[in-house]
Amino acid sequence: MLAEIITIGDELLIGQVIDTNSAWIADQLNANGIKVHQITSVSDNREHILTSLKEAAQRASIILITGGLGPTKDDITKQTLCEYFNTQLVFNQDAYDNISRLFFSRGYPVTELNRLQAMVPEACEVLNNINGTAPGMWFQKDGISYVSMPGVPFEMKEMVSRHVLPRLMGQSRNHILHRTILTEGVGESFLAAKIETWEDNLPECIKLAYLPQPGIVRLRLTASGEDKSYLEKALTDAEISLLPLASEYIFGHDDETLQSIIGELLLKKHATLATAESCTGGNIAQMITSIPGSSAYFKGGIVAYSNEIKVNLLGVREGTLMNHGAVSSETVIEMAAGARKNLKTDFAIAVSGVAGPDGGTPEKPVGTVWIAIATPDTITSTKFLFGDHRGRNIQRASLSALSLLRKALL
Amino acid sequence: MLAEIITIGDELLIGQVIDTNSAWIADQLNANGIKVHQITSVSDNREHILTSLKEAAQRASIILITGGLGPTKDDITKQTLCEYFNTQLVFNQDAYDNISRLFFSRGYPVTELNRLQAMVPEACEVLNNINGTAPGMWFQKDGISYVSMPGVPFEMKEMVSRHVLPRLMGQSRNHILHRTILTEGVGESFLAAKIETWEDNLPECIKLAYLPQPGIVRLRLTASGEDKSYLEKALTDAEISLLPLASEYIFGHDDETLQSIIGELLLKKHATLATAESCTGGNIAQMITSIPGSSAYFKGGIVAYSNEIKVNLLGVREGTLMNHGAVSSETVIEMAAGARKNLKTDFAIAVSGVAGPDGGTPEKPVGTVWIAIATPDTITSTKFLFGDHRGRNIQRASLSALSLLRKALL
Repeated sequence: MLAEIITIGDELLIGQVIDTNSAWIADQLNANGIKVHQITSVSDNREHILTSLKEAAQRASIILITGGLGPTKDDITKQTLCEYFNTQLVFNQDAYDNISRLFFSRGYPVTELNRLQAMVPEACEVLNNINGTAPGMWFQKDGISYVSMPGVPFEMKEMVSRHVLPRLMGQSRNHILHRTILTEGVGESFLAAKIETWEDNLPECIKLAYLPQPGIVRLRLTASGEDKSYLEKALTDAEISLLPLASEYIFGHDDETLQSIIGELLLKKHATLATAESCTGGNIAQMITSIPGSSAYFKGGIVAYSNEIKVNLLGVREGTLMNHGAVSSETVIEMAAGARKNLKTDFAIAVSGVAGPDGGTPEKPVGTVWIAIATPDTITSTKFLFGDHRGRNIQRASLSALSLLRKALL
Repeated sequence: MLAEIITIGDELLIGQVIDTNSAWIADQLNANGIKVHQITSVSDNREHILTSLKEAAQRASIILITGGLGPTKDDITKQTLCEYFNTQLVFNQDAYDNISRLFFSRGYPVTELNRLQAMVPEACEVLNNINGTAPGMWFQKDGISYVSMPGVPFEMKEMVSRHVLPRLMGQSRNHILHRTILTEGVGESFLAAKIETWEDNLPECIKLAYLPQPGIVRLRLTASGEDKSYLEKALTDAEISLLPLASEYIFGHDDETLQSIIGELLLKKHATLATAESCTGGNIAQMITSIPGSSAYFKGGIVAYSNEIKVNLLGVREGTLMNHGAVSSETVIEMAAGARKNLKTDFAIAVSGVAGPDGGTPEKPVGTVWIAIATPDTITSTKFLFGDHRGRNIQRASLSALSLLRKALL
């Protein structure tokens, strides 16, 4: 059973919006054993939408469509679906009640434009949209399921989880299982050379992919077949045989992140954490607090963007800044010690660097970053040299800091 | 002149990676007057890649391809391109020199796998990849340009900017101009009803799209035609006639963000800013410091995740926390005052709320957020009630805080 995803919207084709819906839907379908064959993004254009529907129907039996259902004039998906399914728009009371409910809860009257959103193609089954005004639509034709959903991720996700997946599940007999092994501190090709023999000996049913990100390489194992318990065992065996080759680089699995793993390690130790950030500007604190429940171990942090704050709130000595500069081993060590002391925690991370584009010098070019980790026993500092790109430097410095903390916690 | 983008990789179709390359490429092409007709994501599968190339060639004269060029076995784009263009792999000295240079600079020896990356199809022109080991490839056939590039965004972007765009530019006579008007504090359909007559009276050459995001609606005007100065005037006229209808909601244009606008306002006033964040966990500081040069006005912030830190570092009174709770007008006002005083700034933002999923009570359910803005003269607080989703609550609270600060700065 193959699926295709069609995302509709001029904003996708001019690059104003990144299509995050497709990845989310694909992930959900895969987890339920439905393979996605192709993702296609097309414009808010009648002919283009019709062509893409016809083409997808030749390849797949499930076609999930997002976008183009807004109340405004540029959204033409609904009319185009009427044409495709040779049907017409009719008023739907349930959809209208849902729109009224949403407007009432926000304290607004229903506009004429939103009333029109309750008009739906006669041939479809309406899927209620509890988070928005555009109803979803399910069409069934020639053995193919077509589902049209709003493009707003928040609305679409709820609709997929509550209506689409439960209905599609059970229709498929094939299982697709994934296990992703997360590594850091090793380049893609170096890792590939190290595990080549292992890769060559993987069973037929398992496929391997290397997914590099800044500072991280993810190894994704995909097992496909009808016998689920056989696939599970094959994945486990594959992972066990990988360990002797790469255990020093492996830090987690699947959807784990450095920040989620650190959270678990801190919880297990009943230990607390503070951050002192200069060039990363709060990004590390933001990553740590993106984890639900992080308040159990993260007490807080200081974004010491100016030297004055490094001195006043973290207790960095003025002499240290004068003699060694803000981007130095000495400064980050004092920042980490100050964060640990002033925020009264067991562990602390401190980062100071030149994120760029300005501020580089011959001795400390853009991309130079010092990171210190304070534990109850020691403070250690490490120097990194990243690249020229501000956003990437902030990202890599944050990941490196979390990675150093993880090692200190083990 | 139409372009298509094909992104290759199983990781896209199982949803493990979001395709950000397409939006970036589409944005670059559009800015240079080249329209993108379709974006297609296909798997690392020979037949699927061949089909997608054939189909795209029937619709577009420029085909930009990313992904599938890694050194590992799952990457088969290069071999498939050889088949499509009926050519064979040959050793390319320039590509090899580039690989050697990169490995030398990292202090590693060149692996056998990476040496294979210097093998390229004989029929292509090699595009040097200064940021990575996989060379780009430019093919020309039957009046169609095909460019195959690595999927790593950092490598692809440099290649597009330095090789692909300069070559494509000047080939097109059509101009596509965009102007995006950023609004906040108004829903999509309410805004649409308010500006309906204006929208109906837009000239033929201009198309309007509504692009909603949490808390923000962007109005994108697209003008298309051969006379660039006529299009520019049409866009300006359209915007001027919009102002009387929506000026209260408009906060910026095009790629501006609330944080970039706040930065400019603070610079103009020679004023400084501090943050005191609880539930947003450093996200506001991170947004502010994502702007290059933000150190000129942002002195720093305190992530006061625990009450202890609200008291010790921000001077919130224990009685306030006891009587009103951490999520209250009283607490955020004291947080803002404390941040302004302790970080010695002119302005301060303070946020405290229940991000979820846990921590909600009947009086203060998940999504309750208090925000205070301290100026040199006053401190004001505002209550918000967002929804159930942690990430979305953090995002909306951050945007709302920046929005309130912008208004205070005006």
